[in-house]
Amino acid sequence: MKIYDISMKIHENMMVYKNKPDKRPLIWVAHDFTDSSAYESRIDIDLHTGTHIDAPLHMVKDGATVDTIDLEKLVSHCQVIDLTHVKDCIRKEDLENLILKEDYFILFKTQNSMSDSFDPEFIYLEKCAADYLRKKKIKGVGIDSLGIERSQEGNMKPIK
Amino acid sequence: MKIYDISMKIHENMMVYKNKPDKRPLIWVAHDFTDSSAYESRIDIDLHTGTHIDAPLHMVKDGATVDTIDLEKLVSHCQVIDLTHVKDCIRKEDLENLILKEDYFILFKTQNSMSDSFDPEFIYLEKCAADYLRKKKIKGVGIDSLGIERSQEGNMKPIK
Repeated sequence: MKIYDISMKIHENMMVYKNKPDKRPLIWVAHDFTDSSAYESRIDIDLHTGTHIDAPLHMVKDGATVDTIDLEKLVSHCQVIDLTHVKDCIRKEDLENLILKEDYFILFKTQNSMSDSFDPEFIYLEKCAADYLRKKKIKGVGIDSLGIERSQEGNMKPIK
Repeated sequence: MKIYDISMKIHENMMVYKNKPDKRPLIWVAHDFTDSSAYESRIDIDLHTGTHIDAPLHMVKDGATVDTIDLEKLVSHCQVIDLTHVKDCIRKEDLENLILKEDYFILFKTQNSMSDSFDPEFIYLEKCAADYLRKKKIKGVGIDSLGIERSQEGNMKPIK
């Protein structure tokens, strides 16, 4: 089986949401061979930095926590959809002509992938598009930015 | 596909190597709905706490780092071997009558799984057994403890 590793590299200068310093990971060597028989590192990281999944609790008060997400949803067939032509946001109209497979995880490739720095105007998923995906009974959706919505007008809070 | 989640649960009171306080993870809420529109947590964790893979650098000076390990080795067919009858350590003799499949990842189930607290006398993999596994051309080996060797006499340093 060919594996495509699409996870972000984790390092101290990686892209973080809105370039906020408190989202940046800290990585340090806890022990090396000068003081120990083993080399060991430690990491202090925001759980929304790098490739991650949002639990309902991230946006919904009293929402479900990440440990309740069924792993069968995360180890899944997936479709990668090329939306690199899309500007500003992914709209329902951008999806309607696509064959979206029920029970597949959908990953969107957008212009977000063209940059290694955080763009506050990143491509996001518009509410009607999110509703459309839900109706299509996909397993889940992923995007190549550190959020799937931003502070856009009518911020959907949340995509359920 | 049925998925078996055998990873350790990560929490502040989880089992850590030799019960060392500096191996314990810290988990805290960075923002919640009282100060933010999103709920976010952060973790500070030793990279050898919980389910993990050892890179060569863990035991070998100037050894390879974890990012050089081929993912194809980690997403793999695997064999789970029941060695719950074994005392003290896994010896070559415990393996010789088993059919170990070339290019499979081998996971040992031992008495280590019977306890949620750290036992300094955990079942480890003895050097001749490790050599035997290498000759069998397995992809990798896993055990149900926080180390695959301990401070046993003739500590193998390292299993390569």
